[in-house]
Amino acid sequence: MYIPRHFEVTDDDQIFAFIEANGFGQLISSVQGKLFSSHIPFLLSSDRLKLVGHLAKQNPQHTDIDNQEVLVSLQGPHSYISPSWYNYPGVPTWNYQAVHIYGVCQVFDDREKIKLLVDSLTGKHESSFQNPWQPDYKDSMLGAIIGIEVSIDDIQCKYKLSQNRPARDRKRVIEQLEKSGSISLARAMRHW
Amino acid sequence: MYIPRHFEVTDDDQIFAFIEANGFGQLISSVQGKLFSSHIPFLLSSDRLKLVGHLAKQNPQHTDIDNQEVLVSLQGPHSYISPSWYNYPGVPTWNYQAVHIYGVCQVFDDREKIKLLVDSLTGKHESSFQNPWQPDYKDSMLGAIIGIEVSIDDIQCKYKLSQNRPARDRKRVIEQLEKSGSISLARAMRHW
Repeated sequence: MYIPRHFEVTDDDQIFAFIEANGFGQLISSVQGKLFSSHIPFLLSSDRLKLVGHLAKQNPQHTDIDNQEVLVSLQGPHSYISPSWYNYPGVPTWNYQAVHIYGVCQVFDDREKIKLLVDSLTGKHESSFQNPWQPDYKDSMLGAIIGIEVSIDDIQCKYKLSQNRPARDRKRVIEQLEKSGSISLARAMRHW
Repeated sequence: MYIPRHFEVTDDDQIFAFIEANGFGQLISSVQGKLFSSHIPFLLSSDRLKLVGHLAKQNPQHTDIDNQEVLVSLQGPHSYISPSWYNYPGVPTWNYQAVHIYGVCQVFDDREKIKLLVDSLTGKHESSFQNPWQPDYKDSMLGAIIGIEVSIDDIQCKYKLSQNRPARDRKRVIEQLEKSGSISLARAMRHW
């Protein structure tokens, strides 16, 4: 990803927190020489060395992804930014946060390992509820999916959050985003 | 993209309306044999035959994208869906909307054409404001970007909006999404 220096994020804790919070992303690879992307939730392994997920066996992407170098693209909230919000002259742009991970993909079909993966994914996303749903997967369901593991070989992190604008402009951008309902993006800007 | 029949959208007006409303997406191609993605706003041409956008000249993606078949991936709002929201048994999933467009990319460096493009993009995104910002681009800025045009050769549209669940479950999912602040996704489900 093209990242001008003022938008580059290199702090590991920051990057991994972003990955944990924005795990629904795109698995991009090539299928028979053609670009292909699936929108799936990813789980970061506890040793931070891999992203794990699963695909339907009917999804052709898994058929030749094994040992391929793939791109996992994660994106956070985003919004158009109007120069009319600035105190100082500027041009229109888009604010967003993105993490790109390059790594080699391995597929796995071991039923126990797949069960562990879906249980962990479920646990993660249910943890914010008062009465978390308890995993209860039928064997036939587990048999319909295949696991994928992407080694985290290269991480690129871009926060395009008006860091190239004066503080007064950033403040006004945050206020306008809050006014227009882009709460998550405004929060990301406040905390960066 | 893998699209089970109940999640497939084929109505042209619906698809193009989605593209217009969710134009900030990813331009995915290969740069020196490696997958590459840029997050940029796309504009649909008035004849609906092309997506148009621009890249910074410093972005290496433009250097060998000319005449490449690329993938433009557009994604709408998305959310985890808990089976605890259902009346009938189910498993966790993610609801989302996505459009994938395949086409051949052409770059253009004509200053007048680039000016027309950024003026149109600006006009589109400023149109919702009471006092739209008036385009005022310096020549040096226009010289720092390069235009890209992607022919729309193949469109794939997936709305994963609980269409495989009974009406009572869909209703509860919408209510829960509204409660948790996923207003745009809830609205998409109500109108589908």
